Amino acid sequence: MNKQLAALPKVLAFDVFGTVVDWHGSIAREVQALRPGVDGGAFALAWRAGYRPAMQRVMSGELGWTLIDDLHRMILDSILPQFGLDDLGEAQRQHLNKAWHRLDPWPDTVAGLTRLKSRFTITTLSNGNIGLLTNMAKRAGLPWDCVLSAEVFRAYKPSPETYLGVARVFDVAPDEVMLVAAHQDDLAAARSCGLQTAYIERPAEFGAANPKDVSPDAANTLHAKDFLALAEQLGC
Amino acid sequence: MNKQLAALPKVLAFDVFGTVVDWHGSIAREVQALRPGVDGGAFALAWRAGYRPAMQRVMSGELGWTLIDDLHRMILDSILPQFGLDDLGEAQRQHLNKAWHRLDPWPDTVAGLTRLKSRFTITTLSNGNIGLLTNMAKRAGLPWDCVLSAEVFRAYKPSPETYLGVARVFDVAPDEVMLVAAHQDDLAAARSCGLQTAYIERPAEFGAANPKDVSPDAANTLHAKDFLALAEQLGC
Repeated sequence: MNKQLAALPKVLAFDVFGTVVDWHGSIAREVQALRPGVDGGAFALAWRAGYRPAMQRVMSGELGWTLIDDLHRMILDSILPQFGLDDLGEAQRQHLNKAWHRLDPWPDTVAGLTRLKSRFTITTLSNGNIGLLTNMAKRAGLPWDCVLSAEVFRAYKPSPETYLGVARVFDVAPDEVMLVAAHQDDLAAARSCGLQTAYIERPAEFGAANPKDVSPDAANTLHAKDFLALAEQLGC
Repeated sequence: MNKQLAALPKVLAFDVFGTVVDWHGSIAREVQALRPGVDGGAFALAWRAGYRPAMQRVMSGELGWTLIDDLHRMILDSILPQFGLDDLGEAQRQHLNKAWHRLDPWPDTVAGLTRLKSRFTITTLSNGNIGLLTNMAKRAGLPWDCVLSAEVFRAYKPSPETYLGVARVFDVAPDEVMLVAAHQDDLAAARSCGLQTAYIERPAEFGAANPKDVSPDAANTLHAKDFLALAEQLGC
């Protein structure tokens, strides 16, 4: 299933939402705790569905550079009415918006990252803003060596500036960086920039009721069930 | 000696060179290991003396945006002849230039940061580039929550963009950030942006033979001998 590793990477760059943390389950729990009658799973999916179109408005130039915290808030305000939540006040909206800072890791995440950190530099490479990623890591105990974000490069994935930016920051060749992600499109974009790639299966990313296709793509350098399996494959 | 803390900060932002790590002793040791006859202390002082003028050339617009790694290399090439080191080849120069990635922490640094991390978000705020700061942290075991650098803000300290950038990244008020530094000018610039400030005595920053004035300035929020004393004052 896995190609021969040409050479070990020096830096592992991780996609975060869905790959490191369970956004669907975490957002569903937060909104149901706030208002027990709401369908938390549907709410999480609706919020996340606004994410790519919102980033597209920035990348097209329709909106100026905008942090994900602010995009999340625009989407939140737009979906509250359809879930009967338009009575939420400003303080409640601000708190709910920061649910993205409080996402829970998958069960293997912390142990897997800790093993991978013993041999590689491990960094985020997320469209999430630096503050969001740092707050999330502190709460969840994610042991990053570095927090890299679209905010550093002023471009969202899948822009090449982000993938090549990791290589530039660490002064290594693109193929000395491996992107680790649960999304084939993210990995394909990284590969086109010369990065190595590792696909991680996260079948419950959209909820246990909506299992995701986790078929391997032979174009990836590695394919692993989770971070522990990835650590095994990378010899740590 | 210390003013009453109005309110505890949420984020501690640390100057790095001299405050967290001993650049003088580390650079002196590296160059003496490479060429035993060289006066390592004088070499370290000469290299560091080129640092502010080089940043000034960037801030004035004479040079475009340049990472500290590249400024360090320009200065290195310019001082090698006066130390009889102009015979160093390209690979040796590249390796020596990255001595700034291998600076040793002060004896209290790791234990102090670990205590401070238990209660506050701890981040770098250094003119050093992200790769340099990350490599340094990984080697020395510095437990940062986040690695912020002039590279993120595209401005060097003492530009206000850097101090206010920390508050913006973490979505807090300027006075919810405390700059921790061994340099009064850095602290004064942070204070003029509304940050709280903590001065750390590092009397041997320029070598034990050149003790530094570590007198308190009543304008700082706190004054501490080292990071353990700072943790004590901040209740952790």
